[in-house]
Amino acid sequence: MAPQDTLIDNISIQPDTLALKEKARREGLETVWDRFHAQQPQCGFCDLGLSCRICVMGPCRIDPFGEGPQRGVCGADADIMVARNLARMVAAGAASHSDHGRDLVETLYAVAEGKAPGYKLTDLEKLSRIAAEFGVAADLAPEAQARELALALMEEYGIKKGFLQFTKRLPQARLDKWAKLDLAPRGIDREISEMLHRTHMGVDNDAVNILLQALRSALADGWGGSMIATEVSDILFGTPKPVASQVNIGVLKQDQVNIILHGHSPLVSEMVVRAAADPELLARAKALGAQGINLAGLCCTGNEVLMRKGIPMAGNHLVQELALITGAVEAMVVDYQCIMPSLGDLASCYHTLFYTTYDKAKFPKAKHLSFSPENGAALGRELVFQAVENFARRDPKRVSIPASPQAQVTGFSIEAIVAALGGTPGPLLDAVKAGQIRGAAGVVGCNNPKITQDYGHVNLTRALIAADILVLDTGCTAVANAKAGLKEPQAAELAGPGLKAVCQSLGIPPVLHMGSCVDNTRIINLCAVLAGALGVDIDMLPVAAAAPEWYSEKAATIACYAVASGIYTVLGVTPPVLGSPAVTDLLLNGLESHLGAKFAVEPDPGKAAALIIRHVEEKRRGLGLDAR
Amino acid sequence: MAPQDTLIDNISIQPDTLALKEKARREGLETVWDRFHAQQPQCGFCDLGLSCRICVMGPCRIDPFGEGPQRGVCGADADIMVARNLARMVAAGAASHSDHGRDLVETLYAVAEGKAPGYKLTDLEKLSRIAAEFGVAADLAPEAQARELALALMEEYGIKKGFLQFTKRLPQARLDKWAKLDLAPRGIDREISEMLHRTHMGVDNDAVNILLQALRSALADGWGGSMIATEVSDILFGTPKPVASQVNIGVLKQDQVNIILHGHSPLVSEMVVRAAADPELLARAKALGAQGINLAGLCCTGNEVLMRKGIPMAGNHLVQELALITGAVEAMVVDYQCIMPSLGDLASCYHTLFYTTYDKAKFPKAKHLSFSPENGAALGRELVFQAVENFARRDPKRVSIPASPQAQVTGFSIEAIVAALGGTPGPLLDAVKAGQIRGAAGVVGCNNPKITQDYGHVNLTRALIAADILVLDTGCTAVANAKAGLKEPQAAELAGPGLKAVCQSLGIPPVLHMGSCVDNTRIINLCAVLAGALGVDIDMLPVAAAAPEWYSEKAATIACYAVASGIYTVLGVTPPVLGSPAVTDLLLNGLESHLGAKFAVEPDPGKAAALIIRHVEEKRRGLGLDAR
Repeated sequence: MAPQDTLIDNISIQPDTLALKEKARREGLETVWDRFHAQQPQCGFCDLGLSCRICVMGPCRIDPFGEGPQRGVCGADADIMVARNLARMVAAGAASHSDHGRDLVETLYAVAEGKAPGYKLTDLEKLSRIAAEFGVAADLAPEAQARELALALMEEYGIKKGFLQFTKRLPQARLDKWAKLDLAPRGIDREISEMLHRTHMGVDNDAVNILLQALRSALADGWGGSMIATEVSDILFGTPKPVASQVNIGVLKQDQVNIILHGHSPLVSEMVVRAAADPELLARAKALGAQGINLAGLCCTGNEVLMRKGIPMAGNHLVQELALITGAVEAMVVDYQCIMPSLGDLASCYHTLFYTTYDKAKFPKAKHLSFSPENGAALGRELVFQAVENFARRDPKRVSIPASPQAQVTGFSIEAIVAALGGTPGPLLDAVKAGQIRGAAGVVGCNNPKITQDYGHVNLTRALIAADILVLDTGCTAVANAKAGLKEPQAAELAGPGLKAVCQSLGIPPVLHMGSCVDNTRIINLCAVLAGALGVDIDMLPVAAAAPEWYSEKAATIACYAVASGIYTVLGVTPPVLGSPAVTDLLLNGLESHLGAKFAVEPDPGKAAALIIRHVEEKRRGLGLDAR
Repeated sequence: MAPQDTLIDNISIQPDTLALKEKARREGLETVWDRFHAQQPQCGFCDLGLSCRICVMGPCRIDPFGEGPQRGVCGADADIMVARNLARMVAAGAASHSDHGRDLVETLYAVAEGKAPGYKLTDLEKLSRIAAEFGVAADLAPEAQARELALALMEEYGIKKGFLQFTKRLPQARLDKWAKLDLAPRGIDREISEMLHRTHMGVDNDAVNILLQALRSALADGWGGSMIATEVSDILFGTPKPVASQVNIGVLKQDQVNIILHGHSPLVSEMVVRAAADPELLARAKALGAQGINLAGLCCTGNEVLMRKGIPMAGNHLVQELALITGAVEAMVVDYQCIMPSLGDLASCYHTLFYTTYDKAKFPKAKHLSFSPENGAALGRELVFQAVENFARRDPKRVSIPASPQAQVTGFSIEAIVAALGGTPGPLLDAVKAGQIRGAAGVVGCNNPKITQDYGHVNLTRALIAADILVLDTGCTAVANAKAGLKEPQAAELAGPGLKAVCQSLGIPPVLHMGSCVDNTRIINLCAVLAGALGVDIDMLPVAAAAPEWYSEKAATIACYAVASGIYTVLGVTPPVLGSPAVTDLLLNGLESHLGAKFAVEPDPGKAAALIIRHVEEKRRGLGLDAR
């Protein structure tokens, strides 16, 4: 495990970020890097996982040098403390994704009941397919099918059923491995609650046992909450198909009403997309001197509407503040997750309106318009209306959009990939068997000011495709790679000869955008499909995952469900576990003999690529394929 | 809010504690006070709630003096940070109690299915009564009723139903107050998961909004998980009735096999109680030179078997290590919650066997025998068998039981109180109306090495009964008060003249033991009953609550559901909120106008009593009763 620098010289590899950060400096506006700098030095106890605030006999700290206390007041040692802290991060990540999934399920139910005007059942084929997985009768009308499916999905959050339906998508060998460790997730919320219980003072005090429940909570996310979010979003808004779009801050338009959609859920943003096409609102925009209404995405809400509607993407996590600093944004509409509480302050430095839409996610200096499935369509219209009216307040002298948009192709759901392959995953497997494509890597996750923005994502991705490893990306990584031009079909030129040939024959880029962070379930699901087709467990596939610049609890959860699903995962930022050599060793080594997968931590993207390439080649050897 | 000392001169008011702590010192054994001392000074940032480890852009800290950073990397200020940290404590407490309740529900289901030998439906009247609350048909056989009830209770953990059944026990006025704040809990696990989601980076960033969800999570405990735990335990093991028993470390027997039951659940401990009466095991004990098999409780598992079976109580939270240091314990059997991870180490310094019984709660140096409803009876027998065999290994030279047991009367469920009153709460209300009893206070909660053990509990209780305020206690408080002799009927002499007369006429002590920590729901339920009888909301009653020595997340949750239910609550230990004046003010003042109740923090038990007495008299005035 290499150390990472806590202070970096260059905040970003992206010219738009650098230009806007400079504008922020000129205008005296604070951004995330300034706050990160002000926080130095960050607490070493917390960073190592060696602080505990779980009860008020504490707070407690363990001295990593072995000179001061080695136990908290209750008697917990470093292993227990580190394991509990990590486990709570994972539980919170699982809760976040799963609560997002629940919002989709409740909207599906409302649509089925005819109570959600503006929403509809868009992908009826997928509705039938998923409904069948849950035992819903095939001969029902779509609304009835949707209603039964919604009720069945609600049961996944409960405790009566005792297992999660989507785990049946996995090879039996994987389920057998889980059974030995008691890892199979029961109800989604149950695993999360039990994780919190187990980390209460005086409950679970065995680091390994704690971490196994953390993995189970993560699996309840990956094969539960997140997967539900993905599948129901596809049913409601359409399963993504390849679509051309654009990326970087240049997608904002000097002469249009700019509305930014930020957060993680498609429920509000899809209604904004719908309203932005309203001729009446367009006419009003033109009457106010704008050439049109321009939507742009940020973070995963951006990925959701990019994948399905081709809405251009303004940027990833570390761009959210800078987007406001363009001075060109009439309204930023947020739902939840990864939204910096500084945005209200920044918006108020410009004419920008900052809208919150979920009662469970309020922000300072925001205008709150509450979403429900019942009012979603009306809310979308109201948001666009207010943004249009705000165009008149824009101060052109303060506007700067320092980039031209970069082209990208997106929309690679599993269904789209299989369709591109001619209807079966066979050609992909053939290319892997022939060694043209060595394997595949999911490169995912966030930005983190501890890492030069997008440096990890882009350099790792470049190295992997050059080694003929197909890259599937989501989340902030997807934005980074798109900005680097890696999502244009001609980026195949940057791939190794085998991958290049495959991409050119199919007309696809070597980096396939699979969606938002909950859509990492498309990646694990694809792994399950490929493993099933080969008759092997997932850990035998020549695949890996990486989160080069992760920052959030959700990312920790995703990494855990990836590993527990059998996928070797390389993190670019060290999780707060180094205070326990035992926990660290378990994550980096011990898990492998039980799960066939483990973690690595490697901030250097070149070295991370080398780890993944070696892993992929080893797995090829294991399958009896040619290996380098 | 008065400051509390972090280091105390006297660790305990209890002679048994002092004697055993001295034995620990002589034998060179570390206890909780040593570790507490070694942790000084405790981190001021964590103590004020001003540190954040929610994401790995951090860890972050806010400078309470206003000189260093005032925002975390994400932009969260002190209010957001403090609110998020407190909210996660409350969610974890709710998860703990509720997961405990779930274990009871699953056992009820197994009993109904005939799969839990040794367990039975003990209180059929209560079974029918609770089943009726959940709409289960009255004409079913008990097993069928139990099965339907168990399934209905499982639904309380899910999300389909949308409200918790037990909230219907509340006055409509209370539900109206909740409706205005969106406080009514939906599913138990849902509220907990949503709380975790809302405290993820970039979700809820409004301190008030965060704290409201913390209250809703707490209500999902009080009127959900904990209440389920209480009611189902009564159904399975009997609703408590007044019973004479004993308390303090003197309940251990020099000449018997001593087994300590520690933790919070009755599921294993009831089976140990059952096995300890097995003639075969008794004969074996006698063959080995013991005069019998002696069970003693610790903490809330102790309270469970004390209330229902009269099993004597060895001590509360800070006694758990000392009990082992008597050298007289053949086996300590633990389930979960508040169990110090130091116990395995200490047990191994003696002949004591330390048994863990839940797969979700493993401990260092423990022997693990896994509980399930199916094997509970066999497990109980195995535990007693092993303890008996271990008697031969006891070293008499190392044994010290430095106390004689103190008598107590316990078992005051609501049903028992109403029965003692002649079948209705009328006489109690009459005594309150007449001013003989001024009001009632629930004094509850833990021990904490920040407070001289039991000093807060006993002195507050004495002051309250002297002022004619009936005290209802649970948890560690109940043990403290019993050891102080306050649970003998003759303790009525210590009460004011009115309360004394009532107690003497009924033959009850002035301090009524209502059970374990989950049994705080008996107290809020009694408040609902009394409010209903008077036709008022709970916040109009002359009642209050106090947690003079709390330490755990569960206690934070209990305090929150008490306040949200309308009960003024005085804490003896400051929660980690002082870093946010806004959050502190909300808790101490702001809540009152919405909920009719608020928190106070007062470590001095005399001053805490004065606050409660003033509050009770004010509420009397509000009801048009005489007030002092």
